[in-house]
Amino acid sequence: MSEVLVLGIDYGTDSCRVAALDARTGKTAGEAVAAYPRWAAGLYCSPSENIFRQHPLDYLESLEAGMRGLSAALEAKGCGAKGLEAVAGIAFATTGSTPCLVDSRGMPLAMSAEFAQDPDGMFVLWKDHSAIAEAEEINRLSRSWGGEDFTKFSGGSYSPEWFWAKALHLVRANPRVGSAFHSILEHCDWMPLLLTETPLAMAKRSRCVAGHKAMWHERFGGFPSKSFLGFLDPRLAEARDTLGSGTFTADQVFGLLSPVWASRLGLKPGIPVAVGAIDAHIGAVGSGAGPGVLVKVMGTSTCDMIVAPKEGGGERLVQGICGQVDGSILPGMLGYEAGQSAFGDAYAWFKNLLSWPIEAILPEAEGVKEKIDASIMNVLGEEAGKIDPERSSVLALDWLNGRRTPDLAPFLKGALVGLTLGATAPMIFRALVEATAYGTRAIVERFEAQGVAIQGILALGGVARKSPLVMQIVADVLGRPIGIVGSDQTVALGAAMFAAVAAGVYPDIGQAQKALKPSIEHIVQPNPARGVVYDRLYAEYLELGRYAESLEARRP
Amino acid sequence: MSEVLVLGIDYGTDSCRVAALDARTGKTAGEAVAAYPRWAAGLYCSPSENIFRQHPLDYLESLEAGMRGLSAALEAKGCGAKGLEAVAGIAFATTGSTPCLVDSRGMPLAMSAEFAQDPDGMFVLWKDHSAIAEAEEINRLSRSWGGEDFTKFSGGSYSPEWFWAKALHLVRANPRVGSAFHSILEHCDWMPLLLTETPLAMAKRSRCVAGHKAMWHERFGGFPSKSFLGFLDPRLAEARDTLGSGTFTADQVFGLLSPVWASRLGLKPGIPVAVGAIDAHIGAVGSGAGPGVLVKVMGTSTCDMIVAPKEGGGERLVQGICGQVDGSILPGMLGYEAGQSAFGDAYAWFKNLLSWPIEAILPEAEGVKEKIDASIMNVLGEEAGKIDPERSSVLALDWLNGRRTPDLAPFLKGALVGLTLGATAPMIFRALVEATAYGTRAIVERFEAQGVAIQGILALGGVARKSPLVMQIVADVLGRPIGIVGSDQTVALGAAMFAAVAAGVYPDIGQAQKALKPSIEHIVQPNPARGVVYDRLYAEYLELGRYAESLEARRP
Repeated sequence: MSEVLVLGIDYGTDSCRVAALDARTGKTAGEAVAAYPRWAAGLYCSPSENIFRQHPLDYLESLEAGMRGLSAALEAKGCGAKGLEAVAGIAFATTGSTPCLVDSRGMPLAMSAEFAQDPDGMFVLWKDHSAIAEAEEINRLSRSWGGEDFTKFSGGSYSPEWFWAKALHLVRANPRVGSAFHSILEHCDWMPLLLTETPLAMAKRSRCVAGHKAMWHERFGGFPSKSFLGFLDPRLAEARDTLGSGTFTADQVFGLLSPVWASRLGLKPGIPVAVGAIDAHIGAVGSGAGPGVLVKVMGTSTCDMIVAPKEGGGERLVQGICGQVDGSILPGMLGYEAGQSAFGDAYAWFKNLLSWPIEAILPEAEGVKEKIDASIMNVLGEEAGKIDPERSSVLALDWLNGRRTPDLAPFLKGALVGLTLGATAPMIFRALVEATAYGTRAIVERFEAQGVAIQGILALGGVARKSPLVMQIVADVLGRPIGIVGSDQTVALGAAMFAAVAAGVYPDIGQAQKALKPSIEHIVQPNPARGVVYDRLYAEYLELGRYAESLEARRP
Repeated sequence: MSEVLVLGIDYGTDSCRVAALDARTGKTAGEAVAAYPRWAAGLYCSPSENIFRQHPLDYLESLEAGMRGLSAALEAKGCGAKGLEAVAGIAFATTGSTPCLVDSRGMPLAMSAEFAQDPDGMFVLWKDHSAIAEAEEINRLSRSWGGEDFTKFSGGSYSPEWFWAKALHLVRANPRVGSAFHSILEHCDWMPLLLTETPLAMAKRSRCVAGHKAMWHERFGGFPSKSFLGFLDPRLAEARDTLGSGTFTADQVFGLLSPVWASRLGLKPGIPVAVGAIDAHIGAVGSGAGPGVLVKVMGTSTCDMIVAPKEGGGERLVQGICGQVDGSILPGMLGYEAGQSAFGDAYAWFKNLLSWPIEAILPEAEGVKEKIDASIMNVLGEEAGKIDPERSSVLALDWLNGRRTPDLAPFLKGALVGLTLGATAPMIFRALVEATAYGTRAIVERFEAQGVAIQGILALGGVARKSPLVMQIVADVLGRPIGIVGSDQTVALGAAMFAAVAAGVYPDIGQAQKALKPSIEHIVQPNPARGVVYDRLYAEYLELGRYAESLEARRP
């Protein structure tokens, strides 16, 4: 076995995926997935209240199970345990912002006996909405306190899904964890800290997650100032001292794998572990993102990322997007992030709506639900594909989960207008697809209006590869070609690229991308005639959006 | 058998109902229904184009079949053929405007061999939309020709569903019928003409249908002037000469039953046949309508009627309703008509939408469609009833079939706004119900704003008696009690009342109503707390309506 392997570890919402790649060819030597056992059992969550917590042991157990699975996969190929010995570097991608209150060693409170069952001592998953009031407070304070507006690199608005809002909520809502915690760690920071047994004070915190989720910026001298945080809660001000002032891009080495963890995972001790980062950004790199390329991760929601060179060392502020961070995607470049808060989720909502009669009236009917489930999206797509958008009067607004970008407004809602007695399910489905495409166009137009040119678009994720109708409509609405990335595992692949840089196989991430990036599966070309129609309908969509904003503004 | 019977004959959209009532007690002696055979087979119609024609033979055959059924029903009660001999008067209620091109004897062209299969020689059913362009032309001409605006008693807008638009369409679209026809008869005028064998020139045309559907008004000297009609088509101007200038209320005798028809129907010859009228107006009388009482016939759509005394002989013009006609409902009073073009149809649309997966994916699954059909509306209603309108963000607009009143606008469309990923089928259903209630309120407010006071509300029709949730929401939105009329057959009952007046049993229709009107089944009381909430939501509905109007105005 003369090959050099690198390990990309991708912590998703439900499971941990470990993938070992040949560092020179990018070929997958083996991979394995392990679910989070407590999460799968529904523990520590309340979906109806949008409370989602994950126990740190879920991360550890799934990592160990994943490594056992990987070892078995390599063995099946005839490499056996020796395969893991060829691993020369590790990198982590995790969801984010997924922070946790930790003790002075950087251990999540839930790892102690006292807080083992306390959801407030666990990781607060990216989609947890406990902190809506706290995010509003941060936004108000930021605009009114007289000092720096710390939201300015976060699109002008701080989200309840992010680091400080969640930490503030935890320490206020739960005085016991509020007095027991010492610091706060994101999931992508905890993993390398743990595996390298690095003291907390020397942790190399991720630039990507700190910049996008915790308002870290060089111009601020790091995280928001102690006095600002003190207005929110003195405990946050104190915690700031534990965060350090520097942050690091994912091509840096966090530390070396400790002997204990090497043995637990079957790896060689002392191999480099890279600085962590958020899955979507790592996935953008894994897709081959370069300057001027918009990478759209299209699933239940979208994450839209683009990198742009800094101009004369300066940083252009783009209003109304989620955030912009130097080096969050590609080191040395500005990384911008935007997104649509409901994409595939809007289609799933309609599917669920149409499935209501079966659920409510015939929940026990044998095979009916299964048969509908198995084909409803395909049949809807087929029928919707036959509809001429000029002949359908139905127009939708895609904000069923609020609007993330442009211009964060979580309380906005979706709409369907132009309904007639002849409006059919496929017409409404098509209108929803068109609406999500209009939402994409609004983001693209915002970037370009603010001087971030978009030269190409890459799409990945479940929707991109599985829904040709959706992709064609998005291309038609944008009037631009879209390259579909030929891999379902761009996050693990991106992590492996960073692991390869950490291992010294490549001098920088650009070289790693060149060698390892996946092919473009195919290019969806826009239909210019449809584009003319959609230009008109897009104007109606914008008008509908203005109406929906005015409606929401007047509600009590 | 000393009883005196009167015969109410109700021609609906699908069938003819004959009901024999005891003229003194109002007790039903017997009734029967017969479907239109050609209509049931789908002949002469094209639903996707909104073309709906009915063959005159359908009316005759269903009448004869109905009379045979009635005879059998009476016989079953021990009255036998003698029962029919006790019939002392007949009155017809039909749909309208349902006109037909007729020859010089008043015979529909389709009764001749030449036109027996030509849909343009048949009755053009009320809901036929062939004449959209012609209605627009009539409206344009009426506003621009420099003479009288003949639409002024029709709410300021002439509908494609009405007499002149349909006649204009037929004579233009089909030159053969255009040159063969002599006059135009509404269904409710043809029936008494035929049964009494009255010469066309002596026909007593219905005030109700002429006033509401053909712009007849005393102040105009009758129908619109020859010069006005000549601008549309010289053949209409000629036809005007065949219409006479007078019109008659339904308490008048049209003529006496001819011996031939008496024998065909099993009745005594020479009994009086009343002047005809439109079913909804007859039904309002049959419900017990009096001055200041809004009668709402609530089914797939609504027909809202109210009578008001003339003020000092004058006539107040109400803008934006369907029409106002002296004597169209109660002789001697102004009859106003308004309506919502989709009421139950809006709910049926949603039911069909939810049934799409079954239809599209499992059309053959045994019993599934039937089970869903049997309970979906009940379960939707039950679940919707549990929803607090203040906690649901979903708001609907009920114009899925355009807006009839206030302010006719057939091209407006429905909407659903405030949609979230948590919006469920019952929430949307409730929003649709609330929207139809807001539509009702808009009509009530228009009447009152224009000086027609509404002192009470009576509801009848399928929705009124079968949907307590809908009726409660309508009462809450209006903030007024609603009396539910305790009869499903108010049209036949109203016709029987007019037959009783024609037969001389009562001196006038008021006396007939007093003796024969059905009881109020129960009164739905408004919930004042809900009313406060709905006042706010109604304002949002009006705003949504303004947006939908502006959207439609900008569409090409």
